[in-house]
Amino acid sequence: MSRTHGPALPARADVEEAARRLAGRVVRTPVLHSPAIDRLAGARILLKAENLQDGGSYKMRGAMLAVGRLADAGHTGVVAQSTGNHAVAVALAARRHGLAATVVLPVDAAPVKVDRARAAGARVVRAGTTVEERLAVARRIAEVEGHPLVDAYDHPDVVAGQGSASLELIEEAARRGTPLDALVVPVGGGGGIAGACLAAAGTPIEVYGVEPVGCDSLARSLAAGRPTPVAPAPSLADGLRPGCVGDLPFAVARTGVRGVVRVDDDAIGEAFRLLLLDLKVLVEPSGAAALAGALRLGEPAGPGGGAGTAAGPGGGGTPWPSGGGRRRTVGVVLTGGNVEADLVARLAGDRTTAGAAA
Amino acid sequence: MSRTHGPALPARADVEEAARRLAGRVVRTPVLHSPAIDRLAGARILLKAENLQDGGSYKMRGAMLAVGRLADAGHTGVVAQSTGNHAVAVALAARRHGLAATVVLPVDAAPVKVDRARAAGARVVRAGTTVEERLAVARRIAEVEGHPLVDAYDHPDVVAGQGSASLELIEEAARRGTPLDALVVPVGGGGGIAGACLAAAGTPIEVYGVEPVGCDSLARSLAAGRPTPVAPAPSLADGLRPGCVGDLPFAVARTGVRGVVRVDDDAIGEAFRLLLLDLKVLVEPSGAAALAGALRLGEPAGPGGGAGTAAGPGGGGTPWPSGGGRRRTVGVVLTGGNVEADLVARLAGDRTTAGAAA
Repeated sequence: MSRTHGPALPARADVEEAARRLAGRVVRTPVLHSPAIDRLAGARILLKAENLQDGGSYKMRGAMLAVGRLADAGHTGVVAQSTGNHAVAVALAARRHGLAATVVLPVDAAPVKVDRARAAGARVVRAGTTVEERLAVARRIAEVEGHPLVDAYDHPDVVAGQGSASLELIEEAARRGTPLDALVVPVGGGGGIAGACLAAAGTPIEVYGVEPVGCDSLARSLAAGRPTPVAPAPSLADGLRPGCVGDLPFAVARTGVRGVVRVDDDAIGEAFRLLLLDLKVLVEPSGAAALAGALRLGEPAGPGGGAGTAAGPGGGGTPWPSGGGRRRTVGVVLTGGNVEADLVARLAGDRTTAGAAA
Repeated sequence: MSRTHGPALPARADVEEAARRLAGRVVRTPVLHSPAIDRLAGARILLKAENLQDGGSYKMRGAMLAVGRLADAGHTGVVAQSTGNHAVAVALAARRHGLAATVVLPVDAAPVKVDRARAAGARVVRAGTTVEERLAVARRIAEVEGHPLVDAYDHPDVVAGQGSASLELIEEAARRGTPLDALVVPVGGGGGIAGACLAAAGTPIEVYGVEPVGCDSLARSLAAGRPTPVAPAPSLADGLRPGCVGDLPFAVARTGVRGVVRVDDDAIGEAFRLLLLDLKVLVEPSGAAALAGALRLGEPAGPGGGAGTAAGPGGGGTPWPSGGGRRRTVGVVLTGGNVEADLVARLAGDRTTAGAAA
């Protein structure tokens, strides 16, 4: 009974419907702005603070939508797997809807995510370190328990729900009189960027994805024309390390994404510190990667660097001119804020890469 | 030409007028909420995130109001002194109004505050470590330059401006259907709490002040019936260490404040971590002190602890029952977020006091 996608892809109307259903049930997170970040980026940067969302990440949106529909359909429990934030979100969404939840997390999951899933009342199962290992366990549990599996990204409700964050950002930017020219979203399994593509469909807004170096399944998939797995490299951004972008997200993103930029741990750490010390918000490295990507896209293209690293349908060029042209407005989705205290302390105090983004 | 208060104290109407003048000129900061913090406090805690204000603190409100009126009156420059946030705010406000600014900071000011004042275009003068030393230098500069001195708290526009943060919090709580029963504000020179008293005037909302242990000039002043200086003890909360509450703030607070609670560095550090890791915002220790105070007020009164440490007109008792009574809603003003990276790293990684507030 879990929903799967048929030949018809979700569309902008699905994101609008998701936003209507979620209104008042998730936090309408603020859109933040910093002159210092604008100067670094060479553009007006509007940051959607989904780290302030219930459960600490935008995954709450897709989870509330998907679990709510399952509850409406009479289900009494759900199963989910993820590196952490989706599991926490499904656990919280299940509790709000009175459903039981079992979530499968990797054995090396961030303890804060395990604690949060348990605090939300979910049964936590630890299994393996790869998405394939977790999926196998989650599918077995779903079969034994007779409860549907809510996929972390390969699910139309999850894509539409995550897309509602982008839709709110697009609306708020327009309300302020600075409509978005571009939207930058970090890419793990692709649910968020697929949702962003849907939210931006029919507008002139260019959608860019950001992947950690060595975890660039979307960039490779766009180049190959089909979902292409990678063996994910180590990265600060633990949420952006699925081995392969989902089929449904890829089907949406292949026509909707303008480019993908890769960022390394130094750039992610620098963006983390900017968000913390200048913007005053705690964003997990997977979310900070989005700002790192937006800053990278603003750099002049050149040999071995700059926006020339962008891949995909419209890769290359400098998306936001730092010079004479009209100043562009760029939306960045700060997807979550669940970070270990030790990592916060380490990144906040790290000065070896200070100024790397400047 | 600097405005001073006459026999007539400012009133709620002045805060409402301040809010009107500031609308669209400062950030209407979000009101945040966390179930985990509610559980710790035994009350619904609504947190006004003035760390997300322009300049990184609510001091921007009073500075914009005061400097704006001076600009309207034809002044071409202003002088200010503070431990940091007021100076940064006056520097930013002066730039926005096209005025020159000279700000006097202590020789041991947080470097981030010095940098921010300079980045806003102000001339920065370093002098002494006490408010008296800075005031003497600031008065001399004001006289030589012929520019008015904008006091950090003993100024009706500053009190009314800071009060607009409390007014917005009161309005937002009511809009959500959970009107405030109490309002908790950290106390340095007293501008913020005086503004809070004015914003709450004519409502049943109880206003509580929070002071670091050993920096309790307001508590002592309320007990003595007149402004009473202290030799400020060392505290994490560098913004809450003026030697004496201002005359005007005291005149307002003596009838408006229900109680004052003292918090130590352990409690401030624990509140800092809660705000950072659970709420996902960076709040400076002076702002985190407000949450520490709200948590302390929620503890059962007992020998040597609990809300029994509250002093002032209504000191004593347990302001928000954690037991059977109706759950109370408590507003907390998170006044600023300007913190050194090293201090963030140290406090985030410090586990010696973890759970102290729990």
